[in-house]
Parts: sequence; structure tokens; C-alpha cells
Amino acid sequence: MKLLRYGPAGRERPGLLDAEGRIRDLSAHLPDLGPDALAPERLAALARLDPSSLPLVEGTPRLGVPVAGVGKFIAIGLNYADHAAESNLPIPTEPVVFTKAISSLSGPNDPVMLPRDSVKGDWEVELGIVIGRRAAYVEEAEALAHVAGYCLVNDVSEREFQIERGGTWDKGKGCDTFGPVGPWLVTADEVGDPQDLDMWLDLNGRRMQTGSTRTMIFGCAEIVSYVSRFMTLMPGDIITTGTPPGVGMGIKPAPVYLKPGDVMTLGIAKLGEQRQEVMAWRRQEG
Amino acid sequence: MKLLRYGPAGRERPGLLDAEGRIRDLSAHLPDLGPDALAPERLAALARLDPSSLPLVEGTPRLGVPVAGVGKFIAIGLNYADHAAESNLPIPTEPVVFTKAISSLSGPNDPVMLPRDSVKGDWEVELGIVIGRRAAYVEEAEALAHVAGYCLVNDVSEREFQIERGGTWDKGKGCDTFGPVGPWLVTADEVGDPQDLDMWLDLNGRRMQTGSTRTMIFGCAEIVSYVSRFMTLMPGDIITTGTPPGVGMGIKPAPVYLKPGDVMTLGIAKLGEQRQEVMAWRRQEG
Repeated sequence: MKLLRYGPAGRERPGLLDAEGRIRDLSAHLPDLGPDALAPERLAALARLDPSSLPLVEGTPRLGVPVAGVGKFIAIGLNYADHAAESNLPIPTEPVVFTKAISSLSGPNDPVMLPRDSVKGDWEVELGIVIGRRAAYVEEAEALAHVAGYCLVNDVSEREFQIERGGTWDKGKGCDTFGPVGPWLVTADEVGDPQDLDMWLDLNGRRMQTGSTRTMIFGCAEIVSYVSRFMTLMPGDIITTGTPPGVGMGIKPAPVYLKPGDVMTLGIAKLGEQRQEVMAWRRQEG
Repeated sequence: MKLLRYGPAGRERPGLLDAEGRIRDLSAHLPDLGPDALAPERLAALARLDPSSLPLVEGTPRLGVPVAGVGKFIAIGLNYADHAAESNLPIPTEPVVFTKAISSLSGPNDPVMLPRDSVKGDWEVELGIVIGRRAAYVEEAEALAHVAGYCLVNDVSEREFQIERGGTWDKGKGCDTFGPVGPWLVTADEVGDPQDLDMWLDLNGRRMQTGSTRTMIFGCAEIVSYVSRFMTLMPGDIITTGTPPGVGMGIKPAPVYLKPGDVMTLGIAKLGEQRQEVMAWRRQEG
């Protein structure tokens, strides 16, 4: 099942994608795709609906983050051996954990805004895990039973903020619009093995990243189990799991960074695609 | 005005503290002390209420985090020169920013649970800033106009998780119950100058930390301005601003770390006091 949220930012409605790729409205069945909607029994109830009985949504509305009420947006760093190498950093012996501010969450095709003094904006196609059941000290063998589904994430990063401004990486990871998520939350049953998904990212139509979740250092089950030893994971939390090689920072002979007018397109098998235009930061209403 | 939330965890009701130190119920005036309630005009409306007209709350109920719906729980590291020295770390040239998981938020007198494999639990009395108005790229001179008020925070930390487990500090800062906040949100008008507040922390009745917000390296206005250049600060966001010397990690000749049965008491002038019993982690319901 592919769940989604559509409509203007801040006023999204819940929906699902039918077998023909059309959006069907779920508003009659739940107020929003919030944390409560992600419990296994709630997802099972949605799966029993006949999509053809749901109102068809006309046109091509904006898509929002497919989960509402995200509490934590956790990220794993350097989780592909080749990416660690291109970053000139050692392969971690246990997962590197950092945090993306939830104010960075953004629809899958919303523009990405470069902060005012940004000089090293960069891209990272990643597999996102969406938690469906509370998880504290879960064993690796049980970890995936706490996962509602998976989604595509662009872990947009500002390398100067991340690496050269002192302290932790969080300064360069949580800027507004640095967390495009979606288009869909694809439920775990439909994804199958999360460690066998091809992924790619193009900048202005040129392939920059090609990879597969097969080459993760720490797989999804290990990540959920590991993070659950440091904090209780709650329904609606998202963990983005690291990026394969090909980020701008690692390009030889000279790094390539984002500039206004650039277009990022990216995708992961079974999880859909995103497209973001890059622009200068501008004040949002609200 | 001292705003608070009282009642069992997850079912708190809004209240305020009257001049006699008694809790008055605010439920008739707002559903909860969420982000919307922190706007200047909303706080002004609450300030116009006659506390004696509000229902008196009998007994001594549990207190929760004084703000509901916290989106971001940001923290500043090494913000007191003496604490940086005791941590054997250089004085930062710009604020060190890290993130505490919002699942670490905890009532001011709730027990603090040590994670299962914790060996280096530690304490940090800190001044917390509560954002009242959205803040993006705010100038230092305007920054405090975006602050609803201040609160006492214990930035509980696990030093082995924070420093020795690779990656960022976030692993050792966001464990469940590692973020006691309260007892009150004290509105900015009542606090006055946030850079002139004495603070202290006792472990088992012995004074460990003594300090004042006078010796912060980066003051509250600079912190709000600075962080707002990396992410938009939203109403209800909390920034905890660093700790003065006297943490367990810095004690000579040997560090002192938390163990079950320990009691932390702490306070900041005008902001009230907290008391936490330390216990082993145990599974919470919900």
C-alpha cells in the first residue's frame, strides 16, 4: 500500500495511490496519516479498503510529507562504505547517529532552499524508515516488526555548516527544506526486503549517485535495534539510513555544490521519485 | 506569569501559579499550553486573567513539561568557559549546537532513568529558552522578542554514549527522561534579564554546580539569533543553553557518575527547582 498526503502545505489530506497510480482520498476513514494511523492493526484496516470505493482526486496536487506529526527525524551517517571513503572518513564501527530538525521536513517535490550564507549545499539519496510501533531495546530479529514502512528521503546537507562550524553535524542537516520525504509511505509488506533496493540521484539530468541498499554497512533491522537502545522510537518517527557514493563533496578533482536553479531528481526502487528545484532561502508565511 | 502543566503524564492540564504559589487551573481558557498559546498576544490575554477567579487545584499534583507540543529540543554545548575547561575542550568560537530527542522530555520531578548499559550518567543544570514567535534570520537585537519565556532544564547526559560511541553527541543526550523541564515556563517579562540568574545543582544534598547565566559565552539573544540562521525556530521549540562547571565528568581526582538511588536537586533564580530520583531504565506504557 502506498500512503500519501496531498494538498497545500499545512493543509494536507490523507490519501493512497491506487493500482493505476491515481490518488484516492482517505479523509472519510481517518483525519490524517499521523502516528496513530501507523499501528499494524490500523494499516491492516486501511489495506482492507477497496481503493475503487474511495473518492478519486483529480489533477496533480502537491504532495506533502507522507506522515503527519513526525516527532523525531533521526539520521545515520556514513552507512555505505564507499561514501565513507569519498568523505575521507573511516568506516564506522557502530552507527553514526545525528538529528535533522523536524522543521526541515518538506514535500517530495517542494523547492529546496539554500540558507542565506550557504556555500556547500549537497544531496544525499536515502532510504527512510518510518516507525509504526513504539520501540525500546528491541532485538534485531524483532526490529522490522516495529516498522510501518519505507520512504524516499533526500538528506540535503550544507557541508560547511555540517563540518566546519564546530560541534555536531546537526547545523548542516536541519535547515528549512533540507528534508524532502515521499512521495509515499510504502508499507513494509509491499517493500519486502529493504536491503535490496536500487537507488539513484541526478543533478540537472546527470547521474550523480547510483547505489543499492544492499551495500549498507548497518542494515535497517540493525539500525532500528541500535537506535532503540539510545532513545525510545515512537510511531511516526523517521530514520533516514545514509547515502551511497556520489555526493557533491566527494567529486574529483573538485567538489560540486548546489546553486539556485539546479534540479535534483532521485528515486529508490518501489518507493517512487522526487524532484526538487534549488532556490535561495526566502521567508515562509505562517 | 508562571505557566505550568499538571496531572498524570500524557494527560496534563494547563495551569498557572498564583502569587501564593498555588496552582490555578486554566482549562476553561485554553485546551493546553501548546505552541499557539505562546504567541505574545495570547500570553498577554492570559496575563489579564485574575488568578483568584481561576479554579484552585488541590493537593500537589505531578507537574509535566510546562509546554506541550515541543517540536525541537535544541541544546548549546560548552557555553560556559569554565565548563569547557573541565571537559578538556577548547572554548568554542561559535555556538556548539546539538539536539536532544523530544522523547527525552520529562516532568521536572519525574525519575531519571539510566539506560540499560549506562556507565557515565551525568547532570547539567541549564537555562532553557522557550520560543514564542517563529524566528528565522533574526538579528540579535530582535531575538528576545521571539522568546515566550524561560525554564529550568536538567540536560542529563550519558558521557560514554555522547563522546565514546562515534559520531555526534546526540546518542548521549536524548535518552528517555534525559530532559526534565520545568516546573514552570516563566514569561520573559517576569524574568527580566536572562543573563543575571544564579543556578545550582546538588547531588544527594551535596552542592556540585554553582553558577550564573552571567558567565555564558554566548548569551540568550546571540543563541536565538545564531540558531535561527540554521533552522527556523517555531513556537514551542526549546533551546537549552549550556551548563556551568561542576558536572560529574569533570570531578577530580576521579569522575562521579549517576547511579540508581541518587537524587538530583537543582534550581535557577526565578525559575523554580527540580528534584529527580535516579533509577534503572524500565519500560513505560503507551
